[in-house]
Amino acid sequence: MSEYDDATRLETGDDPTQRHGTFHEEWMIGNAVNGGLVMTTALRALGEHLASDPTETTEHVDPVVLSAYFMTASQPGPFTVTTEVMRCGRKLSTGQMTIHQTGDDGRPVERMRAIGSFGNLTDLDVQRQASPPEMPPPEQCVSAEQAPPDFLANAKFLERLDLRLDPSTAGWALGKPSMRGVMRGWLRLRDGREPDTTMLMMALDALPPVAFELGLFGWTPTLEFTGHVRRRPEPGWLQVTLGSDTLGGGMMEEDAMIWDSAGNLVAQSRQLCGVRLPKAGG
Amino acid sequence: MSEYDDATRLETGDDPTQRHGTFHEEWMIGNAVNGGLVMTTALRALGEHLASDPTETTEHVDPVVLSAYFMTASQPGPFTVTTEVMRCGRKLSTGQMTIHQTGDDGRPVERMRAIGSFGNLTDLDVQRQASPPEMPPPEQCVSAEQAPPDFLANAKFLERLDLRLDPSTAGWALGKPSMRGVMRGWLRLRDGREPDTTMLMMALDALPPVAFELGLFGWTPTLEFTGHVRRRPEPGWLQVTLGSDTLGGGMMEEDAMIWDSAGNLVAQSRQLCGVRLPKAGG
Repeated sequence: MSEYDDATRLETGDDPTQRHGTFHEEWMIGNAVNGGLVMTTALRALGEHLASDPTETTEHVDPVVLSAYFMTASQPGPFTVTTEVMRCGRKLSTGQMTIHQTGDDGRPVERMRAIGSFGNLTDLDVQRQASPPEMPPPEQCVSAEQAPPDFLANAKFLERLDLRLDPSTAGWALGKPSMRGVMRGWLRLRDGREPDTTMLMMALDALPPVAFELGLFGWTPTLEFTGHVRRRPEPGWLQVTLGSDTLGGGMMEEDAMIWDSAGNLVAQSRQLCGVRLPKAGG
Repeated sequence: MSEYDDATRLETGDDPTQRHGTFHEEWMIGNAVNGGLVMTTALRALGEHLASDPTETTEHVDPVVLSAYFMTASQPGPFTVTTEVMRCGRKLSTGQMTIHQTGDDGRPVERMRAIGSFGNLTDLDVQRQASPPEMPPPEQCVSAEQAPPDFLANAKFLERLDLRLDPSTAGWALGKPSMRGVMRGWLRLRDGREPDTTMLMMALDALPPVAFELGLFGWTPTLEFTGHVRRRPEPGWLQVTLGSDTLGGGMMEEDAMIWDSAGNLVAQSRQLCGVRLPKAGG
């Protein structure tokens, strides 16, 4: 079993709306379990719930859209996902996902709440889509392994990925951010597992913060994340671009797009994240 | 009182988590109450709930981010908004909003469920923002009143707005869509009420569907909408742009941006909507 599949594995109990799992230290970034992994775990729970729901069409196997709000940082250890099916329609089935962990005082603490819809992305016609970015092939890109050791020490999550950044957008790793607010890279899971529609939601939030290419190296916690999956990805490398145009009031927006190895746009997202600005003159 | 304020007015009862209002036929578009009005009504309910919550900082008066999922079409008549405060943080307070109406069988039908966060957008510093689009002044633009009568007959909502479209993106109204997937316009409330941060969420979803400029004149129901408010708008006209790059599988993404009369980006959104394509050869 791939380490990604293992990390998102869930156990069911008597309650069909609850599933249980464990977050591992190996998927941490900074002081939290990677938010992308938290989201894909929640989606997996809703997908399993829908598949077991007799009122639901079993054709809705692909997450199509997810909006996730992060309340507190997920920590290594057990968690519970609670799912609610809100509506089963012809085209989409929509539900809510909540992830709790037990706090220091023994009471449940909500980590993330999300609403999302599943549909079926088999054999889609495509009328319009953005073209993949031009960037050097993976072997000419900068591997995340070349990042500064003090950065990697707090980014065990990046060891789960084979991530290669376009050198023209990886200046931050050498202390020379481009200040353009753009980052591009190739991405696949280190364990060789091929991407699927659920994994894409994690991939949308997997690159280092685009804020790094604006010279902002602080923690940029995701406050809200909405991702759209548009196609099932072909096996192979994913091409990911990040960009941000809006920064103010201690918050920025970060937009991601992903193309698969066939050059099709397979997913896109926007998130609102917190930014800590360096003090003037500091 | 402005008709916008009147349309979003809520009554409280004994339950502090429930508020009651009435949707009016005057705010319909097609066979449903305008989704933007539904969202601003829900936000107003959460804002009132937060303001009355003793655990909440009363400084969080501006909606900052909202993710709304539309389950069924809202109809003229009474509705109930149920709100839940999920987390009161230093910077943001986050809650859930649900709108129900009574169905034909007397049982509650969920219309929309949303999660959103309130914060405080007073006196913000802006580091980066997109510039407003170049477009002719309002008096040289195409008023929504000039749209085909059969379109206006099903768009009473548009009578609530003073909407002026850039002629270069209003070809659809003359049966000659540009096919570029871009629409631009000036927008303000017809009743003269100035914009605020809650009204901006409605304004993000107020223009005709950008699909019209792709020659797709069918109904494009919003499945999911996420909007970010970045600043309090100055009084006066709003400049709104819509664009779409991704269309396939019967769904498209629609991105909106709004600048205020001072030229500041005040809000942006992305929505996933359903699209009915004309039959081949039809």
